[in-house]
Amino acid sequence: MFNRLSYNFKRNTLTSNEITNINIKIKELRVNSEFEINDVSSYDNIKKNSVFFIQKEVSIPNNNFLVIITDKKNIFKNKNYKNIILVDDINIAYKNIINFMYIHEDSIEYKDSFKKKFNSYISDYAVIHSSTIIGNNCVIGKGVEIGKKCIIKNNVVIKNSLLKNNVCVSDNSTIGSTGFGFSLSKLGFDNLSPHIGNVIIEDNVSIGSNCCIDRGKIDSTIIGKNSIIDNLVHIAHNVIIGENACIAAQSGFSGSLIIGKNLLCGGQTGFAGHIKIGNNVTVAAKSGVTKNIYDNSTVAGFPATDIKEWKKQIINQKKNGHK
Amino acid sequence: MFNRLSYNFKRNTLTSNEITNINIKIKELRVNSEFEINDVSSYDNIKKNSVFFIQKEVSIPNNNFLVIITDKKNIFKNKNYKNIILVDDINIAYKNIINFMYIHEDSIEYKDSFKKKFNSYISDYAVIHSSTIIGNNCVIGKGVEIGKKCIIKNNVVIKNSLLKNNVCVSDNSTIGSTGFGFSLSKLGFDNLSPHIGNVIIEDNVSIGSNCCIDRGKIDSTIIGKNSIIDNLVHIAHNVIIGENACIAAQSGFSGSLIIGKNLLCGGQTGFAGHIKIGNNVTVAAKSGVTKNIYDNSTVAGFPATDIKEWKKQIINQKKNGHK
Amino acid sequence: MFNRLSYNFKRNTLTSNEITNINIKIKELRVNSEFEINDVSSYDNIKKNSVFFIQKEVSIPNNNFLVIITDKKNIFKNKNYKNIILVDDINIAYKNIINFMYIHEDSIEYKDSFKKKFNSYISDYAVIHSSTIIGNNCVIGKGVEIGKKCIIKNNVVIKNSLLKNNVCVSDNSTIGSTGFGFSLSKLGFDNLSPHIGNVIIEDNVSIGSNCCIDRGKIDSTIIGKNSIIDNLVHIAHNVIIGENACIAAQSGFSGSLIIGKNLLCGGQTGFAGHIKIGNNVTVAAKSGVTKNIYDNSTVAGFPATDIKEWKKQIINQKKNGHK
Repeated sequence: MFNRLSYNFKRNTLTSNEITNINIKIKELRVNSEFEINDVSSYDNIKKNSVFFIQKEVSIPNNNFLVIITDKKNIFKNKNYKNIILVDDINIAYKNIINFMYIHEDSIEYKDSFKKKFNSYISDYAVIHSSTIIGNNCVIGKGVEIGKKCIIKNNVVIKNSLLKNNVCVSDNSTIGSTGFGFSLSKLGFDNLSPHIGNVIIEDNVSIGSNCCIDRGKIDSTIIGKNSIIDNLVHIAHNVIIGENACIAAQSGFSGSLIIGKNLLCGGQTGFAGHIKIGNNVTVAAKSGVTKNIYDNSTVAGFPATDIKEWKKQIINQKKNGHK
Repeated sequence: MFNRLSYNFKRNTLTSNEITNINIKIKELRVNSEFEINDVSSYDNIKKNSVFFIQKEVSIPNNNFLVIITDKKNIFKNKNYKNIILVDDINIAYKNIINFMYIHEDSIEYKDSFKKKFNSYISDYAVIHSSTIIGNNCVIGKGVEIGKKCIIKNNVVIKNSLLKNNVCVSDNSTIGSTGFGFSLSKLGFDNLSPHIGNVIIEDNVSIGSNCCIDRGKIDSTIIGKNSIIDNLVHIAHNVIIGENACIAAQSGFSGSLIIGKNLLCGGQTGFAGHIKIGNNVTVAAKSGVTKNIYDNSTVAGFPATDIKEWKKQIINQKKNGHK
Repeated sequence: MFNRLSYNFKRNTLTSNEITNINIKIKELRVNSEFEINDVSSYDNIKKNSVFFIQKEVSIPNNNFLVIITDKKNIFKNKNYKNIILVDDINIAYKNIINFMYIHEDSIEYKDSFKKKFNSYISDYAVIHSSTIIGNNCVIGKGVEIGKKCIIKNNVVIKNSLLKNNVCVSDNSTIGSTGFGFSLSKLGFDNLSPHIGNVIIEDNVSIGSNCCIDRGKIDSTIIGKNSIIDNLVHIAHNVIIGENACIAAQSGFSGSLIIGKNLLCGGQTGFAGHIKIGNNVTVAAKSGVTKNIYDNSTVAGFPATDIKEWKKQIINQKKNGHK
């Protein structure tokens, strides 16, 4: 067990009755006792005087000092839960209640290792909005523009890039370095194509730790608004990713790939360069996408194919294993 | 060729006779001449006045100034080897002899680029044992606790974490940053789930370079004692890895995965989230594990299956390539 | 749109006629008007007063203020192109013209975030040529030697290494840290094999961002001259890669692997340890190479096999998906 307040600052104290004042959409509630809420429970670790977000029924040791939050009507009906709130969307309730209780590392007000410009190199020719926070040991290069309320964590390198508002870049990531542009007829550092484009990261994007996003060769590498990117992801030069992408860890996007809106992509996937992926495409983990993909497709495997076909391939593969 | 002493400090001088005084379990020995030992040989590069660890028979140019260390009885019997020591365990002999001869970068006494707190940001609210060394350009965040004799190399970010004793974290790794928690119904940085848990790294764990281990959502991400992790590995929030894990490079562990003791896992493997892996499980390189795995299993392929079945799949796959 | 001069310094002004003075091999030319060249066009973004490198015919809005560069004779013949130059090699022309016009981040003269030794830790026992530039937050360890005209970008860790001339290491990479050497009989940090070798990087090598190259155990890990390596690549201890390798992102090379000249390798490939790969070998993306490969082979798949066989495997796999 650990003390949550070692890592996170307390923002507000809260009682079981006050929880209804937080900005969450409540459908029904039943709060029978008044008590302090000091912590958050999880299925593995249920604590007295806490708030507990559930989507499956669990037995509760001391019901009197727990507020259950659920979005399942049948759970709400269970009379063993003395203090329970039925909400419209459990994820939004979790987000808003936790953010009410704690100032944590991804809050713009968090002040510990984020001391603006402490020990970071920021070019005189970079333009950074005053509401943005930058961690330690960062490098913000010439010409970089960073908008409002961005969080740049620690040991991050950002060069040749425009980050709009509300962008988060996590630790040890590299944004806007030169990509892998060469002619096979003559290799070596001296012979690489000069890359003189930039990276554009639209509003409200989150980029994980130890990621690489390369600058465009002549134009821009673009990450669309509201996209979220996990750790150790590689995005090559001139890639354009549409808004609302959700990209799991260790995926790789080759140069000049163009992707529509609402990409959903599992971990360790790879995409060939110079292809087009439509809107609303889902790519299963570990896939290798080698060709254009139509809108609204779900693909899997390598070479990636329609997921129904892939499932048949897998069934056949298994049969061969049982022979 | 390079001069080993450019990189490593000499700890002790040694002669062919003194080698028996080092803490190694010797079964038999035959040392016929006294000479200085100044270096270490390898199969590709046999040097005069050196110690040479072998597990296969090789011809030796100048036997008189080499001490052979082996754990193979038949090699020991070869009379061409004038100075040879038969040890119980060649790996332990290698470790103890090299550590006797050299102070290298992974020794707690190594003092070059590890100057404690030099150019690193360490929160006032972090607690670090005085025997631990921390390299350059690190960030140690609020509430972090680090135990005895840990080595934190350079450009490492550690936040929201408890590291017990004897833990090594190699360069450019990120420990305890926020993981990838979201609801597909609303993406974007503003809508990510706040993560307020921590990372617990038990005793005697080694973590490679450019790795990411994310903090738990509410509880802890845990790496069990005596585990070793190679480079560029991704470990998501709430993953629990049992003791004695051996994890090769570029592997990825998705959120809320639970793994037993003695995991042995090849490179570029991927594990789905929310599954359970038993004790003593071996996973071949490049596998994708999508389902629970029983104790004592060896699996391979994607989706990962029993390795015997996988081998049959591969044989069939090859047949199709020959048609 | 962005202003290219925010990120890149202007080196020389240029007019449509002066372009022929740059060191490029011109086969034929037709330049009908004199005008200033201020920028570079791309297929997606054709600009007035620019130079435009093309290998396919495109319609041009205002031909009078564009210089087309091509290496295709049939494009040159198109009379709609008023100002066009037929060159021997479009890649060399691109490189030389861009480098004439701009000082960009990969130029040795670029001075913004590369201020030598600014905020970087450089060991007193490192030897770095005065023509080499080192970015911010780097660590250059004891005994490291770096030759002429190297570019070490930001947040790079280099230890136990010899870099010859004209080597570029991009941001957040780790060169020369200890690799993954262990005996399965006893794991844990305390029991790892001490690694006391080095890394040798030959002339004119380019290493991407967030890569790891581990030092040799006793001898050297070697990257041959003129090799180029993309982002997030892992190269383990004692790997030897011959000259002219071209290695795409997120590939992994296991310990003691030996590779000949002219390797061409797609992204997310993996190589087993202790095997030998011949000269002129091509490995398709996402392959897993588990066995020795002969000279002049092209392989694909996992386990990697001759690409013709692999294609048959894939055809068969697809058939099973359609059943």
